[in-house]
Amino acid sequence: MPGATQIKLILAYEGTRFVGWQVQPNGLSVQAVLEEALLRLTGRKLVLRAAGRTDSGVHARGQVVCLPDPGTLEPDELRKALNHLLPEDVAVLSAEPVAPDFDPRGAVVGKHYRYTIYNHPVRPVFERRFSWHLRRELDLPAMRRAAACLLGEHDFSSFRASGCESSHPIRTLDRIRWHRPEGQDRLVILEVWGRAFLKQMIRNLAGTFAEIGRARRSADEMSAILAARDRRRAGQTAPACGLCLIKVYYDQEEYRRETEGTYQDG
Amino acid sequence: MPGATQIKLILAYEGTRFVGWQVQPNGLSVQAVLEEALLRLTGRKLVLRAAGRTDSGVHARGQVVCLPDPGTLEPDELRKALNHLLPEDVAVLSAEPVAPDFDPRGAVVGKHYRYTIYNHPVRPVFERRFSWHLRRELDLPAMRRAAACLLGEHDFSSFRASGCESSHPIRTLDRIRWHRPEGQDRLVILEVWGRAFLKQMIRNLAGTFAEIGRARRSADEMSAILAARDRRRAGQTAPACGLCLIKVYYDQEEYRRETEGTYQDG
Repeated sequence: MPGATQIKLILAYEGTRFVGWQVQPNGLSVQAVLEEALLRLTGRKLVLRAAGRTDSGVHARGQVVCLPDPGTLEPDELRKALNHLLPEDVAVLSAEPVAPDFDPRGAVVGKHYRYTIYNHPVRPVFERRFSWHLRRELDLPAMRRAAACLLGEHDFSSFRASGCESSHPIRTLDRIRWHRPEGQDRLVILEVWGRAFLKQMIRNLAGTFAEIGRARRSADEMSAILAARDRRRAGQTAPACGLCLIKVYYDQEEYRRETEGTYQDG
Repeated sequence: MPGATQIKLILAYEGTRFVGWQVQPNGLSVQAVLEEALLRLTGRKLVLRAAGRTDSGVHARGQVVCLPDPGTLEPDELRKALNHLLPEDVAVLSAEPVAPDFDPRGAVVGKHYRYTIYNHPVRPVFERRFSWHLRRELDLPAMRRAAACLLGEHDFSSFRASGCESSHPIRTLDRIRWHRPEGQDRLVILEVWGRAFLKQMIRNLAGTFAEIGRARRSADEMSAILAARDRRRAGQTAPACGLCLIKVYYDQEEYRRETEGTYQDG
């Protein structure tokens, strides 16, 4: 590809032992692990840029990372070589050349996140690293009714963590869906699509939905909580291990196709 | 329940760090962990009997264990108390009283095992503890054709591990099925039902199927491999981490219902 001086990687990682994507002073980041693998492979310190941070403990199946100046390595050679060097909780799913001016953060048109609840009286064994365990059976219809008012552009201050560095609290939810996946009836899953989110916004939404699902609040309260623009009105921050970045979209048409229609079709 | 002096537990465990169900000199067993939790709970050393061993590294979602003389604890109290004491990779799914002469091994009418292959060019992150990674796309129709000849009663010596302590190599496969689960198209799954299996029989079958799926052997060869009654004719032993004991049946009618019909319906 003429003019390509960047490689776009799609990454999967289990967030359990990481402080998140971004290098932090207080623990191991996915970025540090990937930059270390690239140093071993190329002998050079390459600085990576990602589509966005993920919080400590959050998983990814579709994080996007840009690698400048790949040198002489073909993208697919690079992918294979990195997968040999990376630890087993991080993998490069694909590698492809992109234009030199491609900005993996700035070019984002949408993101899809998934929040997984394990909803059963007995704690999970196989799902324990990837879900939030709630014993009491959740009222999925109530949670769906509560979701409707969140769709579209709103001030999401009620779901914004303290320490959020965004310049303003306005975000747009393009699609939101609660469902129980076929054949895995102990899981209750929230899927959310938007261009960007405030700090811990999805986990704060999940924690609030859980209170509605457990009948501690009514579905109607969601719109009052949103309108209050007050973090103290919403529910707890749901645990990081339930959250996963599924996909980052760069194609407006594809994003529109996958988010259009009803706000839920569970 | 009058006359009940036993509790039947259904257990789930992630086999990764265990030498299997049964106490062994060379590592930690699920049995030892459960007996330790019972000792802490009751102050007594209770010896447990299970529906069967599982090999080192093999998982279970439905192991059945019998606990003699539960003392004054109600079954559901016992379940909750054990789940507080057990490590996070073992859980008691249910506890119920059973007749004093119930034998969790002798009363088995059938078992359901699942073998999971992760079939994708890139190694798995989330599925790595629970699947065998095979890069090359498997020929599922060929594997299904090869499965047909295994159904029913046969001498399974070709799939019997050395060191197998069974008195004879005759076993009956009551149902066998290969499928790709909906929405998880990177997984290729073998489901097997039978009353009993030889040592490593399912893993040896899975390893042989994988050679057929990768076109190293034709589907027709399976019947010749079976007829040879020679372990050297079959494929490799597939890794333990792909195998999971799904369910133990004690009800003949239920087992018949769940195994009748065609040998595959994938």
